Amino acid sequence: MTETDVNNPLTPEQQAEVDAVRAESNTTLRPTVPDLEEVLYRPLPVLDRGFVRVIDYMGDDSAIVQAARVSYGRGTKQSRDDRGLINYLMRNGHTSPFEMCEIKLHVKLPIFVARQWIRHRTANVNEYSARYSVLDNEFYVPDRDQLRAQSSSNRQGRGDLLETDESDQVMKLLREDALRSYAHYEEMLNEGPDGERVNPERHGLARELARINLSLGFYTQWYWKVDLHNLMHFLRLRADMHAQFEIREYADVITNEVMKRWVPATLAAFENYRLNGAQLSAQQLDVVRRLIAGEEATRSSTDMSPAEWRELMTTIGRE
Amino acid sequence: MTETDVNNPLTPEQQAEVDAVRAESNTTLRPTVPDLEEVLYRPLPVLDRGFVRVIDYMGDDSAIVQAARVSYGRGTKQSRDDRGLINYLMRNGHTSPFEMCEIKLHVKLPIFVARQWIRHRTANVNEYSARYSVLDNEFYVPDRDQLRAQSSSNRQGRGDLLETDESDQVMKLLREDALRSYAHYEEMLNEGPDGERVNPERHGLARELARINLSLGFYTQWYWKVDLHNLMHFLRLRADMHAQFEIREYADVITNEVMKRWVPATLAAFENYRLNGAQLSAQQLDVVRRLIAGEEATRSSTDMSPAEWRELMTTIGRE
Amino acid sequence: MTETDVNNPLTPEQQAEVDAVRAESNTTLRPTVPDLEEVLYRPLPVLDRGFVRVIDYMGDDSAIVQAARVSYGRGTKQSRDDRGLINYLMRNGHTSPFEMCEIKLHVKLPIFVARQWIRHRTANVNEYSARYSVLDNEFYVPDRDQLRAQSSSNRQGRGDLLETDESDQVMKLLREDALRSYAHYEEMLNEGPDGERVNPERHGLARELARINLSLGFYTQWYWKVDLHNLMHFLRLRADMHAQFEIREYADVITNEVMKRWVPATLAAFENYRLNGAQLSAQQLDVVRRLIAGEEATRSSTDMSPAEWRELMTTIGRE
Amino acid sequence: MTETDVNNPLTPEQQAEVDAVRAESNTTLRPTVPDLEEVLYRPLPVLDRGFVRVIDYMGDDSAIVQAARVSYGRGTKQSRDDRGLINYLMRNGHTSPFEMCEIKLHVKLPIFVARQWIRHRTANVNEYSARYSVLDNEFYVPDRDQLRAQSSSNRQGRGDLLETDESDQVMKLLREDALRSYAHYEEMLNEGPDGERVNPERHGLARELARINLSLGFYTQWYWKVDLHNLMHFLRLRADMHAQFEIREYADVITNEVMKRWVPATLAAFENYRLNGAQLSAQQLDVVRRLIAGEEATRSSTDMSPAEWRELMTTIGRE
Repeated sequence: MTETDVNNPLTPEQQAEVDAVRAESNTTLRPTVPDLEEVLYRPLPVLDRGFVRVIDYMGDDSAIVQAARVSYGRGTKQSRDDRGLINYLMRNGHTSPFEMCEIKLHVKLPIFVARQWIRHRTANVNEYSARYSVLDNEFYVPDRDQLRAQSSSNRQGRGDLLETDESDQVMKLLREDALRSYAHYEEMLNEGPDGERVNPERHGLARELARINLSLGFYTQWYWKVDLHNLMHFLRLRADMHAQFEIREYADVITNEVMKRWVPATLAAFENYRLNGAQLSAQQLDVVRRLIAGEEATRSSTDMSPAEWRELMTTIGRE
Repeated sequence: MTETDVNNPLTPEQQAEVDAVRAESNTTLRPTVPDLEEVLYRPLPVLDRGFVRVIDYMGDDSAIVQAARVSYGRGTKQSRDDRGLINYLMRNGHTSPFEMCEIKLHVKLPIFVARQWIRHRTANVNEYSARYSVLDNEFYVPDRDQLRAQSSSNRQGRGDLLETDESDQVMKLLREDALRSYAHYEEMLNEGPDGERVNPERHGLARELARINLSLGFYTQWYWKVDLHNLMHFLRLRADMHAQFEIREYADVITNEVMKRWVPATLAAFENYRLNGAQLSAQQLDVVRRLIAGEEATRSSTDMSPAEWRELMTTIGRE
Repeated sequence: MTETDVNNPLTPEQQAEVDAVRAESNTTLRPTVPDLEEVLYRPLPVLDRGFVRVIDYMGDDSAIVQAARVSYGRGTKQSRDDRGLINYLMRNGHTSPFEMCEIKLHVKLPIFVARQWIRHRTANVNEYSARYSVLDNEFYVPDRDQLRAQSSSNRQGRGDLLETDESDQVMKLLREDALRSYAHYEEMLNEGPDGERVNPERHGLARELARINLSLGFYTQWYWKVDLHNLMHFLRLRADMHAQFEIREYADVITNEVMKRWVPATLAAFENYRLNGAQLSAQQLDVVRRLIAGEEATRSSTDMSPAEWRELMTTIGRE
Repeated sequence: MTETDVNNPLTPEQQAEVDAVRAESNTTLRPTVPDLEEVLYRPLPVLDRGFVRVIDYMGDDSAIVQAARVSYGRGTKQSRDDRGLINYLMRNGHTSPFEMCEIKLHVKLPIFVARQWIRHRTANVNEYSARYSVLDNEFYVPDRDQLRAQSSSNRQGRGDLLETDESDQVMKLLREDALRSYAHYEEMLNEGPDGERVNPERHGLARELARINLSLGFYTQWYWKVDLHNLMHFLRLRADMHAQFEIREYADVITNEVMKRWVPATLAAFENYRLNGAQLSAQQLDVVRRLIAGEEATRSSTDMSPAEWRELMTTIGRE
């Protein structure tokens, strides 16, 4: 029930545990990735109190090549050839070699983010149990520049920044309600630091019920393990501008701090062929062909909705 | 933002929609299950405001047999033979024929129950989105006889009933905090019934953020589709006495009202071979053998923990 | 061990079973799709002796909309609105509503095709067991116009047609080896039509071993059940020009005969946004933008491989 | 197209590749398992020409505990406590912590075994492609003591050993047909060691077609990656006496050589609670209770089939 510092998402006890595991080094015949080992077990901060910690990994860029070739040894002889094959696999949608790398993360995240995250089913999860244990008093409060109105163009997103008065009031409500919910959670539990009753006259309510008073902004944590193909699928959807800002923050850290250290050649291919590329419909492709051929093309000559047309114009740099 | 009646989990508008779909009847060459059609689309109430509604189904008991035989026609000629084969399949763990039946449910359930439910990954889910839409003011408040202390024997469950004073206080806190959270949710949204601003001076906060003020007791709803094998796996885990009471209530309704109508022969086999059977360890089996042979057996002659030994004694009717 | 007619993939006994199930009609409150009911249970021929038979289905175009809205009744009021929403869902990659439709097929297919097909893991399968039962003497022999050399440009495909002499020899070898393997399979089994020994002096070899003498061209069959989202994923990969011709034939029948009858609005969206669209990489997109802006673009100004550049030129109609 | 020695499943070139990767050793902060490192990359022989090679692994016994506790450091302080928690998790069916360990194997196996193996869907696979590459001339021929008749009691298994004359004939047929199929495969391919035409007058048939002449006894190979929970599920089903002998041989090597080195505490719990335990039905449990209470129990007082009763008697040591 201790609170962590906003700038360091670990308590001193947690930090000591991390330091202890980082102090032991072992010898292995498996491939290792020194760049990733540098941050192994260390928290990469996300949002106000969340983090992503890499706990373990299997494979590297060349393990993808090794699997693609069903090889007896490593990947190819040259890392340049590895990159070429990785590009080829990504471009042609040969996904199974990417499934041959695996990563295990320890993630601390608000419950509403966890609810979006868990929709990605092809992964392994072990969540901290609020039936067994008492949750900490840690909840997410958005930064002021994230307090925005409902978007008018994007039916599920955010639009204009709130005025100061309104955002002051929102932050006050979120904070006060969370603090009160937690105080009542503790009151219902009636449980002291060593499990003894605070008020000896009362039983205290079972943990699995008391926790239903906590809000979706409270932090939970889990171990999450996923293969590289499914990780990229997750990142592509959750780094997208249509994803909610808070989960995008996690996706960004995993892309730019974890993948970059772990599998740099795969990240480059992923950025080129997936993240920064575009999917065109048959109709959109037809417009592109006409424009390239020097013909004119207007929305009225197609069945596209205004939104779809706008998207196309943005994609091809016409707007 | 209307509230439903506790005894009828649908609003009049929802009830009218259900009546309308029940009014249309079609002809099909597919197998049908009249007992299940009787409750199709109708809400089967669970907890104080939740429900399970069967939206669609594929197959019946004899479709399992048909798939097991990779048949050109129906199952066997005799429904008695179908039952025999279903027993055989269940007993020997031949699970794939059971995957050939599918059911689609519309479920309304508290968010903390949804969080346990979603852990079952081999299913299809489409949840009501609180990013697009405003949630209703509906939250779960446990019955008084569910307000229990943390169990001392079962580390994740409930034990003794709270005294009246304490349970009064718990119900008051749960109810007041939920009402206040919802009032603040509405205040932050600043959104009238037709989407117009309640207070014209304020923007109103995006829905995806305002909802983080709601607690885990609020109801959500989803369409959930699953095959019969994975449904039984879900039911076996969630009808178990170690599952939380609230999700067990859903499992019980699905077992006893849905499966019973849909696939009665499979339910009988499921009860005999799974729900009411027992899994014995090698050590436990050894004790059973010795007892049957008329020998004595004490825990000290084994490596079992006290809990494991107690479980065995209960299982074999010795306690 | 009877052989079927090449023009009708069913034996008279199988045809009688199909006729019998088509003769029974039932009443249901579920949505039905008359266009699909027309072919229900009937074999749709594929290759020389294979087929696809629709055994059951759940949902239709409007069930997708109904799930997307977590609705109490049907989809939208207007089927035009259903189409609009389906397009929106497909365009934006909202896949879960499409998972709410399910189809069950009985497929007869060569073993080498089955080995490619089974790689699609998110589906339910029940295959005819050659451990329990004796396989029929049915094997695939390619049409003459499919007998082609290894492609020089596509490392896993076919190129030029063989000359008549060479294709005659190939067909002779394939046919003779298959017939001989089957004759030896029967000899090893030593099993008559009623399970009695053909040669009373010999035991006969267990079926699970004798079948290892059969080649990958022999037909097997299975029940295969899949949701619409995963079906489209399968079709997109297997209708692709890089897929092997034989599995493409199955994908084409399912797309053009099954999907077209079952979910026509979804098929239209699938063709526009997936089948006939294109995925461009960041580099390819950059070339497209430059060409549309009237600039020149050559491969040497990019990192693309010759194959990738050629693909782009084809995609944008420049070749 | 070289053949390997029966006693050493690797060619000299393959052995050299293995030696090369075993020669490089790295430093890591991840947990390592020295017992498993000893056999890393080395082929563990199975059947006449198959093998299992451990390519990589993630986690160890204490990683299960670490995940169960959503820990910041390692598992518990004491490996005795780790064992206790592993037993508890296994006994109570808490499967997700076991999913936090992962193993990657390179397996060489006959195609008919691969067809059974691939039915386990929750795993990653990358198979050697006979569309890209030419298969080696390696096929499985059963040992004489595996040449058995169809079992009369077990509808899918083997019974009595064949007489010498009959097994001589079976081995002759299997071997001759495989050799002839392969010779014709090569003839159709018309492809020399460097890809040049053997007969310059002929094109040669595409690999993807020529391979359909090969039988189910030919060896294929793949990289297979799976988490520990799903591995145990695979092993429990495939080490079972109802599984086909050939796949059981793989399951035995993985259980007794790989798991034993990798996660010995988990293996002990797996053997006690799963492999060597028993699942009793409600009816069987009732009989056990009566026998322990000193009452009599006969099959006629139950609904059990003779097979089910026999199984129970064997389980409880009464037969």
